[in-house]
Amino acid sequence: MPRRLAGSATVRQIAAESGVSIATVSRVLNGYDGVSPQARTAVHTAVDRLEARAAQAPRRGGAEPAVFVRCPYVLTDYFGLIVSSIAETVELHGRRLILEAGVAAEHRRTLSTLHGQSGIGGAILILPPEAATDLIALRDRGMPFVVIDPRVPMPSDIAAVSAAHFSGARALTAHLVELGHRRVGVIGGPHEWIAGDTRLAGTTAALAAAGVLLPPELVRSVPPTIADGYRIAAELLDLPDRPTAIVGFNDKVALGALRAAAERGLRVPADVSIAGFDDLELSRATSPPLTTVRQPLEEMGRMAVTLLVRLMEQHRLELLQVDLATELIVRESTGPAPAASAAPDIAGGGR
Amino acid sequence: MPRRLAGSATVRQIAAESGVSIATVSRVLNGYDGVSPQARTAVHTAVDRLEARAAQAPRRGGAEPAVFVRCPYVLTDYFGLIVSSIAETVELHGRRLILEAGVAAEHRRTLSTLHGQSGIGGAILILPPEAATDLIALRDRGMPFVVIDPRVPMPSDIAAVSAAHFSGARALTAHLVELGHRRVGVIGGPHEWIAGDTRLAGTTAALAAAGVLLPPELVRSVPPTIADGYRIAAELLDLPDRPTAIVGFNDKVALGALRAAAERGLRVPADVSIAGFDDLELSRATSPPLTTVRQPLEEMGRMAVTLLVRLMEQHRLELLQVDLATELIVRESTGPAPAASAAPDIAGGGR
Repeated sequence: MPRRLAGSATVRQIAAESGVSIATVSRVLNGYDGVSPQARTAVHTAVDRLEARAAQAPRRGGAEPAVFVRCPYVLTDYFGLIVSSIAETVELHGRRLILEAGVAAEHRRTLSTLHGQSGIGGAILILPPEAATDLIALRDRGMPFVVIDPRVPMPSDIAAVSAAHFSGARALTAHLVELGHRRVGVIGGPHEWIAGDTRLAGTTAALAAAGVLLPPELVRSVPPTIADGYRIAAELLDLPDRPTAIVGFNDKVALGALRAAAERGLRVPADVSIAGFDDLELSRATSPPLTTVRQPLEEMGRMAVTLLVRLMEQHRLELLQVDLATELIVRESTGPAPAASAAPDIAGGGR
Repeated sequence: MPRRLAGSATVRQIAAESGVSIATVSRVLNGYDGVSPQARTAVHTAVDRLEARAAQAPRRGGAEPAVFVRCPYVLTDYFGLIVSSIAETVELHGRRLILEAGVAAEHRRTLSTLHGQSGIGGAILILPPEAATDLIALRDRGMPFVVIDPRVPMPSDIAAVSAAHFSGARALTAHLVELGHRRVGVIGGPHEWIAGDTRLAGTTAALAAAGVLLPPELVRSVPPTIADGYRIAAELLDLPDRPTAIVGFNDKVALGALRAAAERGLRVPADVSIAGFDDLELSRATSPPLTTVRQPLEEMGRMAVTLLVRLMEQHRLELLQVDLATELIVRESTGPAPAASAAPDIAGGGR
């Protein structure tokens, strides 16, 4: 994409231009140690060449209508990764990104005024808190928009990008079933949301395939925070007949569950298996590293921009609603179910 | 601030309007379990009232010049929190936020074209990778802007907001010195950057006050990732005379260090103390929870917007460069230095 060079030189381009690795380019550009003088010179020369070319390229003016992105949440992990990839892709299309973000925006009635705003050609709505009727009203006003990870089902003529929640949760739970787990606790999200409801369906389907019905007392619905995961996991692990495995519908609640297990002297996975969802960076850093389900967050952002630009440019879209495949990532927090006589609870650990 | 109500109702306002707790409001609005019908009704009634008022308030048109935010990094943790609070504060001022973000933007020559772009009244540059000369050129073109966390020293007439790197690192290291640590390893950032250089100065100052000089072989400069922290911590911990404490200049490298220690059968803090910097959410979730230095990230964002708006409105600024205080957060990853005869390395753990 020639646009990529307009005023821009990516690490990848510099690596290609200089013939050194992307990692080395990054180290040089960020001033880190451990790079040979030759590599350093090669990188700086490449940057100079690329910038000289960029200087000749037509400059961006933000003349084309901007893309409005509404993400009424704190931009950490999940949301930050999506917005970052949206920003990079919008830039590739030579458009401006107007951002509305932060929890204070959650109950702002932005959609009703969006169409009247100057210079906005389309919108990307990330996990929109609005009711379906509000989104349908926006569609009826003729504003092109794409929904990422809708909370509620969308009419088929509203473009939407989601992760494959069902197959992801099903694969994760099937992995636990294969390890002999039958009593599985679930730290889920709100039942009214597609993600929470569909992931729960995937979990119950995998258990049902093994002839097991998920007992209601083992399913809790909480906000996706470490603190809530910790609190609910403590409740589940303190049950007289505690689950042998806990599935968190996001990595943060699973992280809280790891903490609750550690404080009870329970070994993971020897005494209890714990799994998450999302594959955030922190899931690779816990002890033990977390078995989880990778969501293609960057790709969800890229796909949303691609769909939106086609809508803004009046292209006909054959397919308006896309589920992007998830991937089961098996690490060390899941293992064979313990024998019926589980290890006795040892008081201790933690704060 | 009356603007806050224009098209917007925050959880805090709803709590005030309904008389229930912020936590309860959040649970109701997000559809979680465990809320009384009365509270649910009170919240919905409050939202209706606030939205009715908002509907009468003047609607936002983005008429005033927009704020351009350049954050050429992935919006996770540190950067995501700053950009989120900038977005909320820009909204309070009734302006649009135009975002440039993502690593692909790092080497884009945005500043040179910024002044020519329509509808942009000022800019916030987060940890700008540009040389000081580029920022001075932007100032000379008369574009109002504020730098958050500058990499290099700024002329005194360029507005900048930073965390108090020196005092934060000094307090953290003094805490370790008090615990008897004298051989301290540092997983630092690039020396050329203010943050890395100043945090190292704070560390060396605290050690020098105890009559200890930091040996060069114990100081490494790496990218702020879990993987790099893990790699460098492994090197430090495998030294014949390993440090009794490791200070990471961000929580992610400290998280990697916790992992490296666990894989070597080293107990934290009994065998080695490990501390981070930033107080990201994940620092509260590790086992043990991480001793770290809290940076006022949200406040840095709010302060930057406040300074920028005053510059855009031609107010005279008495003070252009602000260091916001950091806070030492002592958790369970730091403890008394082990006796000279450290516990023998036990092979095992991890992968």
